[in-house]
Amino acid sequence: MTTSISPTMLASGEGQALLPSWNDGPTKQSIVDFVSRVTATGDPQFVKPEARIAVFDNDGTLWSEQPMMFQFAFAIDRLKALAPQHPEWKDKKTLAAVLAGDMKAVAAGGEHAIIELVMVTHAGMATDEFSTIVEDWIASARHPRFNRPYTEVIFQPMLELLAYLKANGFKTFVVSGGGVEFMRVWVEKVYGIPPEQVVGSSIVTKFEMLEGAPVLTRLPQVNFIDDNAGKPVGINMHIGRRPIAAFGNSDGDLQMLQWTAASTGSRFGLLVHHTDSVREYAYEATPLGKLDVALKEAEAKGWTVVDMKQDWNRIYPFEESK
Amino acid sequence: MTTSISPTMLASGEGQALLPSWNDGPTKQSIVDFVSRVTATGDPQFVKPEARIAVFDNDGTLWSEQPMMFQFAFAIDRLKALAPQHPEWKDKKTLAAVLAGDMKAVAAGGEHAIIELVMVTHAGMATDEFSTIVEDWIASARHPRFNRPYTEVIFQPMLELLAYLKANGFKTFVVSGGGVEFMRVWVEKVYGIPPEQVVGSSIVTKFEMLEGAPVLTRLPQVNFIDDNAGKPVGINMHIGRRPIAAFGNSDGDLQMLQWTAASTGSRFGLLVHHTDSVREYAYEATPLGKLDVALKEAEAKGWTVVDMKQDWNRIYPFEESK
Repeated sequence: MTTSISPTMLASGEGQALLPSWNDGPTKQSIVDFVSRVTATGDPQFVKPEARIAVFDNDGTLWSEQPMMFQFAFAIDRLKALAPQHPEWKDKKTLAAVLAGDMKAVAAGGEHAIIELVMVTHAGMATDEFSTIVEDWIASARHPRFNRPYTEVIFQPMLELLAYLKANGFKTFVVSGGGVEFMRVWVEKVYGIPPEQVVGSSIVTKFEMLEGAPVLTRLPQVNFIDDNAGKPVGINMHIGRRPIAAFGNSDGDLQMLQWTAASTGSRFGLLVHHTDSVREYAYEATPLGKLDVALKEAEAKGWTVVDMKQDWNRIYPFEESK
Repeated sequence: MTTSISPTMLASGEGQALLPSWNDGPTKQSIVDFVSRVTATGDPQFVKPEARIAVFDNDGTLWSEQPMMFQFAFAIDRLKALAPQHPEWKDKKTLAAVLAGDMKAVAAGGEHAIIELVMVTHAGMATDEFSTIVEDWIASARHPRFNRPYTEVIFQPMLELLAYLKANGFKTFVVSGGGVEFMRVWVEKVYGIPPEQVVGSSIVTKFEMLEGAPVLTRLPQVNFIDDNAGKPVGINMHIGRRPIAAFGNSDGDLQMLQWTAASTGSRFGLLVHHTDSVREYAYEATPLGKLDVALKEAEAKGWTVVDMKQDWNRIYPFEESK
């Protein structure tokens, strides 16, 4: 996988404009102002480097999530690949609907249907084996609209932001409702964020000795859902301190932004609003969540809202800036 | 709290002997050889810096665990402080035994008794409040034999080892059966390991809005036990990649060492054997675990075993080397 500008290149920063894919204006300015405040020694809002924790949602915040969440596309491809060995799936409502391409039936099944799909496609193998499966898929699957690997359908302005924060002493974490072991396979190459800085949903794993070798087996049982009220719980569990900056794009990120914002000192919250129907997608609701509550709270609390159409002159690394 | 040599001082390393509290011999040599191999560019066993993950058990590995695990001492002190508000505890077998100082009765109650004690002393408050309680205790409590804060009853040779690994590009993690939120309060100051690099046992926390402010409340329900077969699970969950070095002192660390050792490339496993009844304690079993299985496997697999009496010329930072 390739991205035209790597985090490392950006972090060096010399001779480059600051956050070049962000148009000048209040949105970009709010980011730069925050970073300047917390990094200026002597400023009353100065934050020591080890406490500069920034958390990023993934789906819709760092990469696109249309026409469906990318991990959902993985699950469907996986289901199709496994189907010949599982004739019994024809009698399972959700699985049969997916195999028949009837996505409306799946959406109607809600969270229960999604969990059923995840369990049959994500469990029943060793963790190492699952990583290989994801790696192979991410290398070969293509986004249906852009005909590019999903790992290129990522937001160039957010890559620049990740690198900018890193260059200013921040430690950046992904905190996503997506599967932690699905993300860890590619997140380091694509975002420059190491696996230990990825927090996500998970299924139960079990340690066993198989023929004298230790194995972690993935079981069809939910361990943790890192979404909505689960996000502050996941942050507390994994990171163990409160972030000073949080970035999201839906109501599923609301509690993470609330948790980040409600503390002493300088805090920063940002929501990406998908307003560009031409270059990306324009929407305020997905089968899994909406944005209206978070948008209202952003206004009340003074969080930054990115108007994608207005604020970003470039969406994806593979595009030219407009 | 003070330690005579801070990790930072050691990491600079100039003009200092290498691992000065370790006596010269095969134990110390095995550490230095391993680090030399994985850090030498061009060596077939070279490991790139981001994959240099080292995991350390805490109780009995980084600090002492006698005459009882230090977190158990915290629980007892906390129980005594709360008892006046809980007359009903007189009718609870385990709690009444603890309050009466009858530790044998508690030990006889096994894991069930310990969990009961943990729940009434560690749950029922916000996470921030719990941190403050631990902070106050750690600042005032004294180890009964050494009459020093528990955070000084730590192993000087292991501090040097942590700093040595860090100076060689390793990322060091605590992976302990102890409570993750109990440890995070003091681990950074004492070991130079940040909260996000601490993996431990946990109880369930719940996100709620109380009077408009977000709170994480600690519930009396076990979330995860990071011991025995739980350690590889915790490592996979938090770190997301396999360590190349693991350090423990009991059968509770066996699976962590197995998981670390059973992979390609250069791997290092070490067990601390408590053999010094004069300067520390000599034992091979505690109420919570033994060491015999791990010791046998160490011999079979070629893991390093520290003979504390022979290999360490200094145990604690507050002592002179012998």
